[in-house]
Amino acid sequence: MSTHAPHDPSSGTLSYEQAGVNYDLIDPLKISAQRAAAATAVHMSAHGFTEVKASRGESAYVVDVGLFYIASIVECLGTKTLVADEMATLTGKSYYDGIAQDTIAMAVNDLITVGATPLVVQAYWAAGGSDWFGDAQRAQSLVAGWKKACDVCQVAWGGGETPALAGIVEGGRIDLAASCTGLINPKERLSVGDKLGAGDAIVLLASSGIHANGLSLARKLTERLPQGYLTEVQPGLTYGDALLAPTTLYSPVTEAIYKAGITPHYCANITGHGWRKLLRHPGKFTYRIHTVPPVTPVLKFMQEHAQQDDREAYSTLNMGAGFAIFVKADQAAKVVEIAKSCGIEAWDAGRVEDGEKQLLIEPLNIRFGDDDLQLR
Amino acid sequence: MSTHAPHDPSSGTLSYEQAGVNYDLIDPLKISAQRAAAATAVHMSAHGFTEVKASRGESAYVVDVGLFYIASIVECLGTKTLVADEMATLTGKSYYDGIAQDTIAMAVNDLITVGATPLVVQAYWAAGGSDWFGDAQRAQSLVAGWKKACDVCQVAWGGGETPALAGIVEGGRIDLAASCTGLINPKERLSVGDKLGAGDAIVLLASSGIHANGLSLARKLTERLPQGYLTEVQPGLTYGDALLAPTTLYSPVTEAIYKAGITPHYCANITGHGWRKLLRHPGKFTYRIHTVPPVTPVLKFMQEHAQQDDREAYSTLNMGAGFAIFVKADQAAKVVEIAKSCGIEAWDAGRVEDGEKQLLIEPLNIRFGDDDLQLR
Repeated sequence: MSTHAPHDPSSGTLSYEQAGVNYDLIDPLKISAQRAAAATAVHMSAHGFTEVKASRGESAYVVDVGLFYIASIVECLGTKTLVADEMATLTGKSYYDGIAQDTIAMAVNDLITVGATPLVVQAYWAAGGSDWFGDAQRAQSLVAGWKKACDVCQVAWGGGETPALAGIVEGGRIDLAASCTGLINPKERLSVGDKLGAGDAIVLLASSGIHANGLSLARKLTERLPQGYLTEVQPGLTYGDALLAPTTLYSPVTEAIYKAGITPHYCANITGHGWRKLLRHPGKFTYRIHTVPPVTPVLKFMQEHAQQDDREAYSTLNMGAGFAIFVKADQAAKVVEIAKSCGIEAWDAGRVEDGEKQLLIEPLNIRFGDDDLQLR
Repeated sequence: MSTHAPHDPSSGTLSYEQAGVNYDLIDPLKISAQRAAAATAVHMSAHGFTEVKASRGESAYVVDVGLFYIASIVECLGTKTLVADEMATLTGKSYYDGIAQDTIAMAVNDLITVGATPLVVQAYWAAGGSDWFGDAQRAQSLVAGWKKACDVCQVAWGGGETPALAGIVEGGRIDLAASCTGLINPKERLSVGDKLGAGDAIVLLASSGIHANGLSLARKLTERLPQGYLTEVQPGLTYGDALLAPTTLYSPVTEAIYKAGITPHYCANITGHGWRKLLRHPGKFTYRIHTVPPVTPVLKFMQEHAQQDDREAYSTLNMGAGFAIFVKADQAAKVVEIAKSCGIEAWDAGRVEDGEKQLLIEPLNIRFGDDDLQLR
């Protein structure tokens, strides 16, 4: 990563790093935390269980408890609330029903990648002070949205925490996260990568917009927009409203696929790092994309105003595809059909091939190699 | 709850409410969230499972998955990091190994109350900016302490989140939480209250200090101390160091008790609301305490400087007892012995009786009634 020279926000290419997150500082901690975490696996044997080692480095952690696997996760929403708060000031509306869905989506969409059925969600709502909860409209909107997202995913809302953390969380703000526990049952549903092979199809599921990744860049961009969040992305739709489209919940699709007798060979939740997440699988495969989904208007708008070329945009944002399901090629059409029946557009977008580890987005003439994604 | 008149911090009684948390604002949200959450239980049947309804309102949420129960939870550390940060400035030491233990204790000590063996912990470390993680000593201290606490509890550290949330979390601060998933296995270990009865013993386990509840009050008190956190609680021990004693992890005790053939009838983690937590069980019982553990020096110091009478102190702080285990009276001595063998002081402190719902701390002539604790 290059050093971050001061830049003029009003013009030129705006990259994700320039928007404020410095992975150089976080990564050494992450690596030592991952090492320490891996060393705790030995404790499972004291309980007569074992961890699924291949789940380390995947989106959710999996333990084998005999009859089935248990998957668990905690996920942070990120800074999307800052957009919601700004838009609430500008429009008088509350966006926290959608924000609730975003938060649950962060956890659920990751948990399902390993083949799990999400069972229980816990809410983590840490406010900057008790007064956050005193805005009844906003608080009830958060509750209602959380409930609705649980209903869509058929998970039980187990409980949670609503601390007031003055001095840690900024006044007037809230730090939102969700933890989720699920089962991989039957065990054949486990998809941590060993099943993926050459010839498999790559089915892409539509995103609803930016989801909850790339928001630092999205916020930074308002400095370039004469009307800020109220700038229209398309007639009648402001940039702020478009950004706040809630993240698609993909668990209805993965559950319906399983009920139709299809077990994905692998799944990737396309979040931070954009389409580079398609390279997440640890194996050596070439992912050849022949069909690129239409770009969601708000993402096209962001790409234009950030003056990013396609390579940069696809390496940062989901660009219209929020989730990837890898299945046997002859099952791809059925997966597309099932996703559509769940109300989510989908495309049989490419194939897995033996060969160099790389992602080839052929219609855009883009290549990402192994060194473009270092997540583990 | 009374309205909060401005007060002079330098003298007079300092209550928990005066220290800055206004439950009047949080409680309406909590109630509507609890209702909405309860309504999601129906989803378990879609998966062939059922929730353990009695776990709603308990410290952890429990689902019956057939062969055993799954318990899950997410818990926030609170504001103890503000003390750690201030002390780091004053002494140059890093306190984040202890802070890590505190955070895991918040989750694990709650999870075990329902009879669960903690299996997997997920880390939630949300910093005010990437630079938080750039302080290598502090970051490594957090990692090492987290690992050590996992080792003590024999849980696997599954993974977690390390977001940088500038604009939400204050610069230089970190919002810490832990989620935990465990099993109640065999199912007979479930302790959500139906087993508790008259004649049961109340075994109290020693706390190590303030643990992680009452920190707002503890911080507020420094305004009254001429040397602030460096004021000595006892020769050679500063107030700040005493406050930062890490929370005792009680899962080694509950696991050892089970291995000795003893199944608690109920457990209570003594956190916020102090000893009033002994009234947590929904049934109508009188809890008669005949033996009061020695008060941890830092808590005695706080009580004195906050000019609280015993009733106020025991209603807010743990006062030397961090966890309560309710067992058959003839098993109490064995539980005390097991706790001591785990390095944790313990007392057969009282009995459960039929009668009015109340807690009688006889040696101190204190009574708490049903209306003194409204948690559900």
